[in-house]
Amino acid sequence: MQKETLRIETFSDGVFCIAVTLLSLEIGVEVKNVATNTDLLHALISKWPICLAYVISFVNVLLAWIGHHSLFKQLHKTNNFIMMTNGVLLMLVALVPFPTKTLGLFLQTGALKTAVIFYTAYFVLISLAFRLLWHAATRRRDLLIQSITDAQINLTTKNENIGLICNSIILATAFINPWIALALSFAMWVYWIGFA
Amino acid sequence: MQKETLRIETFSDGVFCIAVTLLSLEIGVEVKNVATNTDLLHALISKWPICLAYVISFVNVLLAWIGHHSLFKQLHKTNNFIMMTNGVLLMLVALVPFPTKTLGLFLQTGALKTAVIFYTAYFVLISLAFRLLWHAATRRRDLLIQSITDAQINLTTKNENIGLICNSIILATAFINPWIALALSFAMWVYWIGFA
Amino acid sequence: MQKETLRIETFSDGVFCIAVTLLSLEIGVEVKNVATNTDLLHALISKWPICLAYVISFVNVLLAWIGHHSLFKQLHKTNNFIMMTNGVLLMLVALVPFPTKTLGLFLQTGALKTAVIFYTAYFVLISLAFRLLWHAATRRRDLLIQSITDAQINLTTKNENIGLICNSIILATAFINPWIALALSFAMWVYWIGFA
Amino acid sequence: MQKETLRIETFSDGVFCIAVTLLSLEIGVEVKNVATNTDLLHALISKWPICLAYVISFVNVLLAWIGHHSLFKQLHKTNNFIMMTNGVLLMLVALVPFPTKTLGLFLQTGALKTAVIFYTAYFVLISLAFRLLWHAATRRRDLLIQSITDAQINLTTKNENIGLICNSIILATAFINPWIALALSFAMWVYWIGFA
Repeated sequence: MQKETLRIETFSDGVFCIAVTLLSLEIGVEVKNVATNTDLLHALISKWPICLAYVISFVNVLLAWIGHHSLFKQLHKTNNFIMMTNGVLLMLVALVPFPTKTLGLFLQTGALKTAVIFYTAYFVLISLAFRLLWHAATRRRDLLIQSITDAQINLTTKNENIGLICNSIILATAFINPWIALALSFAMWVYWIGFA
Repeated sequence: MQKETLRIETFSDGVFCIAVTLLSLEIGVEVKNVATNTDLLHALISKWPICLAYVISFVNVLLAWIGHHSLFKQLHKTNNFIMMTNGVLLMLVALVPFPTKTLGLFLQTGALKTAVIFYTAYFVLISLAFRLLWHAATRRRDLLIQSITDAQINLTTKNENIGLICNSIILATAFINPWIALALSFAMWVYWIGFA
Repeated sequence: MQKETLRIETFSDGVFCIAVTLLSLEIGVEVKNVATNTDLLHALISKWPICLAYVISFVNVLLAWIGHHSLFKQLHKTNNFIMMTNGVLLMLVALVPFPTKTLGLFLQTGALKTAVIFYTAYFVLISLAFRLLWHAATRRRDLLIQSITDAQINLTTKNENIGLICNSIILATAFINPWIALALSFAMWVYWIGFA
Repeated sequence: MQKETLRIETFSDGVFCIAVTLLSLEIGVEVKNVATNTDLLHALISKWPICLAYVISFVNVLLAWIGHHSLFKQLHKTNNFIMMTNGVLLMLVALVPFPTKTLGLFLQTGALKTAVIFYTAYFVLISLAFRLLWHAATRRRDLLIQSITDAQINLTTKNENIGLICNSIILATAFINPWIALALSFAMWVYWIGFA
């Protein structure tokens, strides 16, 4: 059964990897209205919102990938419930380019707040999918690797809960001030990178 | 020869994985005519048909991937006929974004029925390719793994036939009522996820 | 050094796999001018040239992938010359969507002949890259696996030469009659699938 | 911990592989204004700047991939700092299609100089990320494989520095004459391919 887990991990890795690389497809300068070197410079500089959205999403998906690994490292075998919740998670990850380009396109417009709420709500959904996947994994003790201790299980549960709560707080903040929400999202990385 | 099977499986996995992730490329909100937060909210909500099509296709491809695995797990070695039928299957899987975006674009238009017929007919083709692949695998007993029993072979044959018949019924229903066809497609997942 | 060969093979597999799946991105029906079921039916049917181009390219890339494997199976280690020629081959394979969409877009236009010449010339280039790669591999005997016989080396050389000659004949035919060239391309598959 | 390194390498390989293949998506001929064989021929020939940009980027990413491998071959285990710098490197690699299409689109326009400066500056950034990654790897001796000698470490450090300096010189040249910068970039490959 270990082999089956490996297969799902490889497939999941592929989805994370492609999702993260596809993000770049949205970024480009259009040739019309650009005639001189100065025009192109301005056109490139005006792309900063989509580049910022790209960087934020790249880091978020990369952190989600790391989280996915540390979760699956604790799994010994899978069942249909895990397959399904993992499928939902992958479906959300594969669609990250959608909220990312929405954020990038509307960061400098009057629709900024809706864009940030949509973006942050999307990552609350991803946190929920992670939490559900871990719930599916811990429901039956024989799905986990034998060497795992209750303390380790509780630590992961705690981390998943903290991730979900943090993302929810960021979403709530987005309703008040979108820029603070993006700043909090940035601050959360520092936390994760420090503790991962 | 086992190594050769592994290679084909890895390559097939790649095609499934990329096809599923490429689905997301079609989904995006255009910047024109969106000036306020409310505009963007409405624009996002109006994207539900393509999102629904995305979810349906994601699950379908994921189930096809699971089916592909359980089929190849029973294979010991390959020949040209298997290579060819597997190639046809991959060709169809890689093109799933085409019927998916057709379904998404025309779900709310007067062309709904044609879109659903095209979409469901496409998955009948995929079922046929699976059935053909399994036919190619079972034509000669030495292609299968040694430990396999006749009962197991018959079970897979029966499952492939059921899949083909179900998809054909869904296609027939699409000619009468497209929405019932989509609902049946959804109900079929529950069956597969429960029995897979 | 065997490990290094494996790495290049995996990377090459990835490029083949992505190139083949990206082909599908070009195929889609536009929503404008389609109001009824009949409109969509006609729009879908009018997509046959790009679908034909897709099928032709899918098979060509798949056959190239099989050829790449049987070539690398005979390699024991690599050097810079092999890395370079393999890089050129991958560069050409990754760009197959370009001639494919050119063929699909202009199959029914007055520019048919140029499109077919471009497409067939492109596969002459790929054959040349294969031939060059095999030349790089056979220049020094210690790059090949030890168990290989001179007869096997000569057989592969002969096959590479036949492929190159066939593709050149198809290109030459395209200058006279593009449709015969496409038919010959189809006939060549039957040969390869039969002998591969 | 070796297993963890393998995972990151596989994921990084995937990003390199997809980035290199996605480059091709930008290249295509539009159907409008093309009615005859001669029109298509001219349209295809007029695509040389984007094809040139494609070739330059393909080789650059391929060389970066080879560099990434030889760097990771010397790593025994990873830490958060390495994960982070590798993440920055992958983020830059995944976005290579952006400077590539900018270069291709503006190579024949009045904005040539800005396009080449942007392109060459981008590869200075990639060199910097490589240098940072190697700095992260060599900061603590226990991250490297045991069999490595100080001479080997110094050689890699020297190579990374040379790469960074060369790319900086090319960037500086781009401010004076963009074509000489592109020619130097080409000359640098010959160096790398000869010494890699």
